[in-house]
Amino acid sequence: MCQLLGMNCNTPTDIVFSFEGFRRRAGLTGCHSDGFGIAFFEGRGVRIFRDNRPASHSPIADCVKQYQIKSLNVIAHIRKATQGEINIENTHPFIREIWGENWVFAHNGNLKDLPDMSESFCQPIGSTDSEAAFCYMAEYLKNRFRKKPTDMQIFEAIQDITKKLATHGTFNFILSNGEWMLAHCATNLHYLTRKAPFGKACRIDDDGVIDFNDYAKAGDKVTIITTFPLTKDESWTKMENGGFVLFKDGDKVAEIIGVEKEAVDDGTL
Amino acid sequence: MCQLLGMNCNTPTDIVFSFEGFRRRAGLTGCHSDGFGIAFFEGRGVRIFRDNRPASHSPIADCVKQYQIKSLNVIAHIRKATQGEINIENTHPFIREIWGENWVFAHNGNLKDLPDMSESFCQPIGSTDSEAAFCYMAEYLKNRFRKKPTDMQIFEAIQDITKKLATHGTFNFILSNGEWMLAHCATNLHYLTRKAPFGKACRIDDDGVIDFNDYAKAGDKVTIITTFPLTKDESWTKMENGGFVLFKDGDKVAEIIGVEKEAVDDGTL
Repeated sequence: MCQLLGMNCNTPTDIVFSFEGFRRRAGLTGCHSDGFGIAFFEGRGVRIFRDNRPASHSPIADCVKQYQIKSLNVIAHIRKATQGEINIENTHPFIREIWGENWVFAHNGNLKDLPDMSESFCQPIGSTDSEAAFCYMAEYLKNRFRKKPTDMQIFEAIQDITKKLATHGTFNFILSNGEWMLAHCATNLHYLTRKAPFGKACRIDDDGVIDFNDYAKAGDKVTIITTFPLTKDESWTKMENGGFVLFKDGDKVAEIIGVEKEAVDDGTL
Repeated sequence: MCQLLGMNCNTPTDIVFSFEGFRRRAGLTGCHSDGFGIAFFEGRGVRIFRDNRPASHSPIADCVKQYQIKSLNVIAHIRKATQGEINIENTHPFIREIWGENWVFAHNGNLKDLPDMSESFCQPIGSTDSEAAFCYMAEYLKNRFRKKPTDMQIFEAIQDITKKLATHGTFNFILSNGEWMLAHCATNLHYLTRKAPFGKACRIDDDGVIDFNDYAKAGDKVTIITTFPLTKDESWTKMENGGFVLFKDGDKVAEIIGVEKEAVDDGTL
């Protein structure tokens, strides 16, 4: 299994405080050492950094820390391989163009017996179940809507295809098009929103401390989504299994409460 | 206009000697200061670095120099914007998945009145003519061949679509799928192959000197493709206008001699 980290904000924010705790789980406080990746939206563009070395010791991760890139939407992933070799093409997050936008996707879980995609318009490059599932989702969305529909139509369509894919196994994921960030929880996904009044936080993985008052402005809203909480003194919400949450500008704008067991693939919602 | 740099080799090679001269043209010895990008194939995966700052002064470019990434296929681009704002989504090289492979593309030129792609399966994200042309090419190839054909069928198909696109303006480009590198010259593109017996070379842009005997092994072959020669004491071949060259493992494996004027879009080769 792997771990996921996402950030969705209403003001460009650097993710260094969260990422510095998260990356320790790739070899120091956790065993997710089979590569890492992090994608920063910048307008409609994406800066993406990947390495097949553990995030805790990667010079690419040091570079990410050093530049303190500010972004409205960031997705990071530390890998513990279940399917697919340890190499760059199997390293999350994956990226595809959908309706003229960059879509960025990272998965935690394990999916088995996914449909053959060898003649699909959108095909996986590596050998992970994760990228295959994302390609299946992309193909489904492009076939269902020739042009970009409303955010709520997208949210519903992603629920439909997710429930089908989830019949193949465990499917926690974070997805963003640079405007919104969508999280689906199968087993473990937590989130919190930092906004005024700001306080201090202490990281679980190395006791690093920050006082957000030193960095944030009054109206700032920063939502962090992650597999397991990153701080010990903040109130994290555990998503329900089977649930979906859509964030925009740091706010939760839609939520589908999960069901204990994922829906079976009967073609309905 | 912009400038292009490509490298295709039979052994993983770092591009630092060439890139260090090339990047000076982005603000020091040339005016191609509107962002840069460089993509390194690593197996089927790609490491891609982009910045909207000039390559000569970009910390991302410093990072690329520092890590001395070795690769069989590299494509770099320094931009002088003709169409599209200066931002990350308009920064070459562009990348798309075709037949389950990463394809990387960089363009020098200016294309006008390209067909509308707003309902295409493969759409541009930014606002450059270059990305739109690449998407048009990707859509054409995927529709013509549902599964990956032979390299020679691909080479012919790219000639067909290129001649159509070239009726819209100036279309120099370098393209790679990580196995081969294809160059098309409309106005300016030069190449050379470094192989035994190796010698010294002196860069045009800063007089930097290298003796390849200090780095290369007997069987190494490294082809460099670039808009204008990077060294003053090596023999560069200028491609003919309208010509195509296909390189693999550092060797020229196919060539179509150009015609002085690009073919008109009459649906034939």
